[in-house]
Amino acid sequence: MSPKAGKSKPAAWPENPLRDPQDRRLPRIAGPSGLVIFGVTGDLSRKKLMPAIYDLANRGLLPPGFALTGFARRDWENQDFAQVVYEAVKEHARTPFREEVWQQLSEGFRFVQGEFDDGKAFDQLRQTIDELDEQQGTQGNHAFYLSVPPKAFPEVVRQLKEHGLADPRADSWRRVVIEKPFGHDLKSARELNKVVDEVFPPESVFRIDHYLGKETVQNIMALRFANTMFEPLWNRSYVDHVQITMAEDIGIGGRAGYYDGIGAARDVIQNHLLQLLALTAMEEPVSFDADSLVAEKLKVLSSVKLPDDLSRGTVRAQYTRGWQGGELAKGYLEEDGIPPDSRTDTYAAIKLEIANRRWAGVPFYLRAGKRLGRRVTEIAVVFQRAPHLPFDATATEELGQNALVIRVQPDEGMTVRFGSKVPGTAMEVRDVNMDFAYGESFTESSPEAYERLLLDVLLGDAPLFPRHEEVELSWKILDPIEEHWAQHGKPEPYVSGTWGPDAADEMLARDGRSWRRP
Amino acid sequence: MSPKAGKSKPAAWPENPLRDPQDRRLPRIAGPSGLVIFGVTGDLSRKKLMPAIYDLANRGLLPPGFALTGFARRDWENQDFAQVVYEAVKEHARTPFREEVWQQLSEGFRFVQGEFDDGKAFDQLRQTIDELDEQQGTQGNHAFYLSVPPKAFPEVVRQLKEHGLADPRADSWRRVVIEKPFGHDLKSARELNKVVDEVFPPESVFRIDHYLGKETVQNIMALRFANTMFEPLWNRSYVDHVQITMAEDIGIGGRAGYYDGIGAARDVIQNHLLQLLALTAMEEPVSFDADSLVAEKLKVLSSVKLPDDLSRGTVRAQYTRGWQGGELAKGYLEEDGIPPDSRTDTYAAIKLEIANRRWAGVPFYLRAGKRLGRRVTEIAVVFQRAPHLPFDATATEELGQNALVIRVQPDEGMTVRFGSKVPGTAMEVRDVNMDFAYGESFTESSPEAYERLLLDVLLGDAPLFPRHEEVELSWKILDPIEEHWAQHGKPEPYVSGTWGPDAADEMLARDGRSWRRP
Repeated sequence: MSPKAGKSKPAAWPENPLRDPQDRRLPRIAGPSGLVIFGVTGDLSRKKLMPAIYDLANRGLLPPGFALTGFARRDWENQDFAQVVYEAVKEHARTPFREEVWQQLSEGFRFVQGEFDDGKAFDQLRQTIDELDEQQGTQGNHAFYLSVPPKAFPEVVRQLKEHGLADPRADSWRRVVIEKPFGHDLKSARELNKVVDEVFPPESVFRIDHYLGKETVQNIMALRFANTMFEPLWNRSYVDHVQITMAEDIGIGGRAGYYDGIGAARDVIQNHLLQLLALTAMEEPVSFDADSLVAEKLKVLSSVKLPDDLSRGTVRAQYTRGWQGGELAKGYLEEDGIPPDSRTDTYAAIKLEIANRRWAGVPFYLRAGKRLGRRVTEIAVVFQRAPHLPFDATATEELGQNALVIRVQPDEGMTVRFGSKVPGTAMEVRDVNMDFAYGESFTESSPEAYERLLLDVLLGDAPLFPRHEEVELSWKILDPIEEHWAQHGKPEPYVSGTWGPDAADEMLARDGRSWRRP
Repeated sequence: MSPKAGKSKPAAWPENPLRDPQDRRLPRIAGPSGLVIFGVTGDLSRKKLMPAIYDLANRGLLPPGFALTGFARRDWENQDFAQVVYEAVKEHARTPFREEVWQQLSEGFRFVQGEFDDGKAFDQLRQTIDELDEQQGTQGNHAFYLSVPPKAFPEVVRQLKEHGLADPRADSWRRVVIEKPFGHDLKSARELNKVVDEVFPPESVFRIDHYLGKETVQNIMALRFANTMFEPLWNRSYVDHVQITMAEDIGIGGRAGYYDGIGAARDVIQNHLLQLLALTAMEEPVSFDADSLVAEKLKVLSSVKLPDDLSRGTVRAQYTRGWQGGELAKGYLEEDGIPPDSRTDTYAAIKLEIANRRWAGVPFYLRAGKRLGRRVTEIAVVFQRAPHLPFDATATEELGQNALVIRVQPDEGMTVRFGSKVPGTAMEVRDVNMDFAYGESFTESSPEAYERLLLDVLLGDAPLFPRHEEVELSWKILDPIEEHWAQHGKPEPYVSGTWGPDAADEMLARDGRSWRRP
């Protein structure tokens, strides 16, 4: 666990009993490298990053001498840091704990204590990294994970530059990983991108949108482009509209300081939901490498058209006190740390169109909210009714519209809704569901999004990370809406535990449609 | 149970606790009428017709004074006949036994004893029917169900004519129901049709193919024409081929006398499988009335094209001794009553094409057989591979072709096979199934095919009965194949309990395809 000078790097991980015997492919294994986490004492680090690193090691996908360095203000020694990682792994790791893997992994743990504006600490970090190259064989390949508040970004990046940490030696690499928020509007996003781009070349910047690491999100591409059956229907000739929903049942919890003034639209629509929209609507990419994929997503985002009347085509709302899951939940304005006159949206619904040949005239309804009826993220492609129904009128009274629903979480999978004859001596057609569940169809368990994404960072494989152009285009879509909201009154109220405000239902009712109750 | 002169007909059935509370439609209820069954002592009558009549009465779908008359050689009184019906109902009815329904139903039971060539018996039948009009209020509406050997058909029909039973009074109807076989080739079918058509107008002739009464068969039309999602894919642009399978696990049982010389192709391909093919391939009918539906089916059957080389495009085979379901099954030639040199096919596979714009170049592979691996009837629409796969070559190694499978029996429902991402940190796509099961999706239980079909006969509703043109067209398709087989050697052998002869696998392998193992 503590550095031992001159010790040669391990040659391999303990033999791996976890590898799926069905998987005949060569696994993607990261080459010699290390990861530095800034803000390593935070929740994300403890609940997601540390367990993901252990799980990757346990699956044999990290280099045998992988190094993990924590950087934080806290007055820790290496062994304090190791103890924190240990507890995080014990509590949150997905795969079983194996002592021999842990022992080997913890050989590469280091901790550097310092403030972000403390040049000496970065000197110390540089020295630590150089030693790791010696001791663990990381060969100069290091990724810096900035799990820090947005306002600390520029300083950390500047220090990395100033202390030569951003510049790789020949034949090695340096990468930077940044977490959302990528700004809070187009202007701030551009400023942030400028700061980062001045220090790291675009291919070395990894913006994490953990939604893109989810199996079901990646499966959108597999479903659309590996199959014959879906793509012919995937256009304005057959699709009536698309609903993309990200519903949470929780409130803001302890995030008041971050959330207030940001709201649902900035928090998740700008990134997660617009990324889901892009993957759902894009054309087939030349390949799934980062450049080809980004090119297609950019085309979709560039084609997004806002409603002419933003009062009728958008809704924002704020949860009020209500019963949820058998408990009385506070209203947003009653939450600790929220000013009583806050106009922050905890629910947002937006109607968009995509002005291209495939999608012209097909509305994409996006909604996201906290304290809704149930936790669910899904993409519902709702098809038009059949152009003609050669049945008696009464036969199809209970027939709805066909729909294909990709369940992103929880209960990952896909549902197709279609009409089937009701058993009986008359012809009557009613909606039924056919279902595919990830959990039932595969023996493989799904890796956590962060496992996939951290591995991709170490491999330099970027298709699942939004580029700065995508971030800026997404803000360009959201900015006019936020400006409109800022100028027009207050959020609508909605009772906690319901499916949002009446205004959102009315928005769809005006189009002769209704939201799904997933 | 015994006729009581002057008794007024019952006004209604006992209140019906079986009616599905979800069904808000007016039920289709037959008007005043009676049914005469010739050959009422046979298996079909006892196992299917009698229970179906009770179930219809129990569901309140028959007229309150419904009359059932048995006609057979057996020396029975009315009460003997009633006892036989009682036992058949107790043993085979689908719905619960209710004494009050039974009592009311049995008021309308009559038995007429006689040979088919006994004019006096038909006089007696006429008198019985006239009395039923008085006693049960059947109002002159009577259907004659000919559950008799083919050779008795002409005589029974002639007698019906001669004794005025075929001619309705004004405002009433007479109908005839005939069971397969409708001939054994085009010539004999034409002769049979001529006999029937001379006595009954076409709209009064109901040919029963019980497959058309099955829920899943009727659901083919609901799936195709009530939904938006399937029809755009339902053509040569997306479909690679179609497989229609009717596999039985049993042998010929006690049917040697009927089966030998007939064989699988005549027994089920000519009727059931070609009807399934017609429903799968037809264009949307103007409506689901008999004329519109028959018109579309006739177009398909008229467009069927046989393979140029019948030796390569057809296979016939005969089961040999083998293990099935843990028991050693006799070979066909060892079955009781089968001549040791019989060339009858117990398995037949045929490749057809449909020469029209929708289906040109798409093979329809039909197969039917006894003593196969499992009892299953299904229609599998197998789609082409995606025209391009923008994945690494290894990612789609285990990806098959998309397929939509309509499971006709058992385990009625539908399965869609498609490719989905395998959970893991690499993009790999593998086939998964999504499933819809009738039993799980509906609380309603499926009526037996004979319930539906008998009710349709009494209602005069004919869409589910093949017309004589369809029967003749189907023989026109089969005749050249049977002639070819008669002139070319013997059937291939296949071991009982397997999926048929190697020659059938080779037939598909020559096209680069393979049979499903359902």
